[in-house]
Order: sequence, then C-alpha cells, then structure tokens
Amino acid sequence: MTTDTHDISTQIQLVSRPIGWPTAEDFRTVQIALGPLQPGEIRVRNEFVSVDPYMRGRMNDARSYVAPYELGETILGGAVGRVVASAAADVPVGAAVLHQRGWADVVQGDAATFRVVPDLPGVPLSLRLHILGMTGLTAYAGLTRIAAMQPGDTVFVSGAAGSVGTAVGQIARLLGAGRVVGSAGTPEKVALLTEKYGFDAAFNYRDGEVSALLAAAAPDGIDVFFDNVGGDHLGAALDAFRDGGRAALCGAISSYNASEPVPGPANLANIITRALRLEGFTIGQHLDLAPEFQGRMAEWMAAGKIVFDETIVDGIEHTVDAFLDMLRGANTGKMLVRVGA
Amino acid sequence: MTTDTHDISTQIQLVSRPIGWPTAEDFRTVQIALGPLQPGEIRVRNEFVSVDPYMRGRMNDARSYVAPYELGETILGGAVGRVVASAAADVPVGAAVLHQRGWADVVQGDAATFRVVPDLPGVPLSLRLHILGMTGLTAYAGLTRIAAMQPGDTVFVSGAAGSVGTAVGQIARLLGAGRVVGSAGTPEKVALLTEKYGFDAAFNYRDGEVSALLAAAAPDGIDVFFDNVGGDHLGAALDAFRDGGRAALCGAISSYNASEPVPGPANLANIITRALRLEGFTIGQHLDLAPEFQGRMAEWMAAGKIVFDETIVDGIEHTVDAFLDMLRGANTGKMLVRVGA
Repeated sequence: MTTDTHDISTQIQLVSRPIGWPTAEDFRTVQIALGPLQPGEIRVRNEFVSVDPYMRGRMNDARSYVAPYELGETILGGAVGRVVASAAADVPVGAAVLHQRGWADVVQGDAATFRVVPDLPGVPLSLRLHILGMTGLTAYAGLTRIAAMQPGDTVFVSGAAGSVGTAVGQIARLLGAGRVVGSAGTPEKVALLTEKYGFDAAFNYRDGEVSALLAAAAPDGIDVFFDNVGGDHLGAALDAFRDGGRAALCGAISSYNASEPVPGPANLANIITRALRLEGFTIGQHLDLAPEFQGRMAEWMAAGKIVFDETIVDGIEHTVDAFLDMLRGANTGKMLVRVGA
Repeated sequence: MTTDTHDISTQIQLVSRPIGWPTAEDFRTVQIALGPLQPGEIRVRNEFVSVDPYMRGRMNDARSYVAPYELGETILGGAVGRVVASAAADVPVGAAVLHQRGWADVVQGDAATFRVVPDLPGVPLSLRLHILGMTGLTAYAGLTRIAAMQPGDTVFVSGAAGSVGTAVGQIARLLGAGRVVGSAGTPEKVALLTEKYGFDAAFNYRDGEVSALLAAAAPDGIDVFFDNVGGDHLGAALDAFRDGGRAALCGAISSYNASEPVPGPANLANIITRALRLEGFTIGQHLDLAPEFQGRMAEWMAAGKIVFDETIVDGIEHTVDAFLDMLRGANTGKMLVRVGA
C-alpha cells in the first residue's frame, strides 16, 4: 500500500494520569495500520483536531458526566475532516464530517458515528470546532439556559479571550446585555476584548486581587457570571453579584493542574444572603439546543456580527504541545491543530 | 395607668455589632411607655417571640436581602400574640395576630402591619411561628421550588433536628422522597431524627469527617441537599451528589459566629463535572407559595402526619439567652420565648 490510501493512522494516546501539569511523558504517539473498510464504514482524513480545557479533566480518573480517558487509548475529542474512502452508501468521498475520535490524523469507523456537515460558502471547516460548533453552543447554552441571561444584565466572563469566552461576550451583547466585562491573563488579550470583541471593560487578572479588579470594571455589580477559570474568579463574582445573580460554571482551568485541593472562596454565604444560583454544566447535556443555536449563529455570522480568533499549530505530532500551550493560556481564541498534508 | 393596660413595653435592642459569638453586652433591655392608640392602631400582648438563626446575620452590617438591624433599635422578628386594645374597626380585642415587631412583650402600631390568624381547634398559637409559619414555608419552598425535589430522590438535610430541618425531613417524605438522611450535633437529636421524625438515617456531625459520615448514611449518593449549616456539610454534599443534584442553601449557622472568613470546600469543581445546581434563598422572596403551603400543611396536620418539637424559654427577659442557646444548638425543634403573664 502507499500513503495515498491513508491506511496508516498516527494517533496520540494517554499512558499515565498526570498529577498537576501534564508532561510529554504522559502521552505516546503510535502508528496504527487501518484494516479494510467494513460495510457501512468510512475513512476520514482529519483537517483540524481540537484541544480543549475539559480534556485535562478527562485525564484524571474522576467521576464526571464525561468518562475518564482510558490509559493506552487514543485521546478522544472533537475533530473535523474529509472522507477519503467510503463503504457507506450515503456518505460520499470528499464529504466534510465532524466526529469525536480525537487526536489522530486518519480515523475510520461506522459512518453513523460521524456527522456530515455542509460546506458553507466562505466558512472554513475549522469553525465547526469552535464558533459554529460545541464552543459556540457552550456559550449559548450557558448564557441562555443555565444563567437565564436577561436583556440589560451585566455579564462577567472569566477567561474571556479563550474560544468560549469570546463567544460568550459577543452572544451576550447580541442578546441585549447591558454591560459585558471580561478577564484575561495578558495585556494583549485584555486589549483584544475591548478593541475586537466589543467588551465594555476588561482586566488582566494577574494585575491584582480579582475581586478589586472586577469591582472597578463593574462598579454597579454583576447579574451573570460565566466562569471558565474558577478559583479567585468565583470568589470575586460572589462579591460582585447583585441580588438574584446567576453563575454558569463551565470550566475551572485554574484548578485543572493543581496537585493539591484548592479551598473554595470564603464568601459562599453570599449565595444565601443574595439569593444567588450557581449551576455547573457540561455541553453534552444540552445538545437539544443545537438547532436553535445554529440557526441564530448562522444569522449572526451572515450579518457580520461575529468575530473570532484561531491559534493554529501545524502537525498532528505537535498536538500535545498545543494542548499544554492552551492550558497555559498561549492561545487567543480557539486553539487548533491543523493536521497538514 | 396600671400594668393591666399594657402601656409599658419591655423590648430588647442591639447596642453593638457582635464580632464572632454575640454576648449579653451586645444587647440592652429597655422599657418604653406606649402612647395612646391612634386611629387604625392596635396594641398586642405577645404570647410567643421567635429566635431564629437568620437573626445573627442581621446583627452584622452586611448587604443582604434582609436589612441589618439598626443599633439602638429593637430586634425585629416573628412574634404572635393577642390584641389587648384596638382602635382599628376590623381587628377586635382578643384576636390572635402574627407580626414582625420582634423581641418585646407588648407592641403597638398600624393594624395593617399585623396579620390576624384564625384560632384553629387544637392548634397552639406557637405553631404560627414554626411549622404553620415561616419555618414550614421555608422547608416547603426550599424543597419544591429551589431544589425541585422529585419523588424517589435521596434528600440530605443538615442541622436536621432544628425547626426547619425537622420540617424538611417530614415534607420530603410526604412528597415522595426515596430516602431521607439528616445530620445533627448530639446523639439525642440523631436518635430523634430516625425515631420520631421518620428519617431513614441520621448521623452526628461531630463523630468524624462529615463527608465519610454522609457516605455511610447515603451510600448511593444524594439528589437534594437542604443546607442549614454550611461549612463542612457543603463539601460533604458536593462529594455525595449524584449527577444533576440540587442544593437549597438556606442557612450557614456554622459560620454565623466566625470572626475570620472560613474558606469554602475544595471540591467545588464537582459542580461542573456533575452538573450540580446550588441556589441560596431567603423566604421573603417566596411568600407567594404561602397559600399553597398552608393548604397542604393543614391537610397533613389534620391527618396526623406531622410531628414537631418546641424548646420553650419562659420570660421576655431571657430572650438573649434563648437566642444564644439556639445558636449553640441547645434546642430541639423550634426555640421560642414564651412571654408569660
């Protein structure tokens, strides 16, 4: 066989569960010879592979809505590619497909486990992994269903320069938020938030006590908190909440790599005295919102109302580096691995 | 005038904001000469005065749904008594009335600020201050509206031998809970929970790590947490929650008298991974549920399905002692002050 048949798959697997920050030694790269397609199967060459914060959680052996990764198995996650061989009548070669087979350059399996997505004019395939995909849906579900955002609300987004955060800020504005405030970890990201993403105010959470920084950025308090960071950000939000405030807890990237348990904020009693609601969510429980979201997002994009950033790393062999860089905050917007030729 | 006219009111006022545990020196007892009734006013001799955990919070100068007590003013709160003089056409002498004028033996004011309650056969007036009043409504609103309890749920109640806790346990059972588990602070209270109040399991939270004690009492996990205590109990519930669990955060008696901020639990990330919802509430926001609650509770009581305890301290002059004893957990069921002759 030749490489043109894409019958060798390079895949990245978890070999040990990281304690604290993951290292390259927690992973291995394997090459797997793909067998002939069985009836109903397709072979897909990935174009983009996603690296996401939630994957760090799956590397632990902890109970969660999403099962832990198995040791010695390929890291599962979002990816988008094109069909290079098909034994499924309804999925032609060349079709774009979205799937959850993760960190690999070529994958194959039952066509029913892939979702064919239309090629939209002017819409790169990579957007299916963020603003038009789970990232955008996460922002939308968190704001509308979990936090029950109302027009006029002041919305605070932590980790706002990430792919979910930039979507949250823009969607909040489009849904009528009165004020949108974000935090990020570098001056460049903070500038992007107000200059590119339309946030009313933004701050660098490394500049001081988050609670004081938030109080300055949202002097009249906040109604909604969309949390991607956890830790000090939650305590700051609890200080800033107006009565009846709602938090959509989406991520806690600040604690994912902690090797010791990190105590929670000391002001949890505000939940009672201000009648606050904190709700965690994982997007898998809210996929029923996808049609509604995709309809609205397609309209917003067509009207030129949505901007986004991608940080692209080339080469499947650099996936672990991309993942670690993302955990450290090196990306602006969505961090993606482009599989390459 | 003679004392028969009840024109001298003995009242207890806050004179300094306690740091940590309140002491007798934070209060003073005053005697106030009541002026003649103005048109529309009534004078009421209290029979029972309520001392409640939330009052400790109002002694701090902190933002809350409920305003802080003013220094030099009488401690406001629930009380029930009978009209001894009336200048209001629709409120006769002898009527039983419920009000919020608090720690006093005699009060007077606009009849519209009192609520006339019917004398129910076999129902002591004191019940208007707990199982038939705000205490019962708090239990009902927290279970049904805040925690959205479903039949079959496992319900965990902290501080379960208190007046709210005993109501929560019984109402949860009547609403179809699959398993009801409670914590309390003495062996006697723990025994009462299973022997009198129908809890399936109960533990003494001083017997060890709350998380381990709860895991033993609810080995299959919990769906609903009704929290009166805060602190370690919240962390234990977060460990025990099944996916989609809901917490109604009603009180945090463990932290009311802390002079230093107490860090929150280290397992808040479970809120995300298990898609939990934590919601705080103050009963004042849910008074619209009162008619529904009173109808159901009256039926349950008539059917003999509700039991309760009262710990009664005699004499308005012992109100501060009763309040401090309640904060220390000396009461079983509702702590009340009986005003006396």
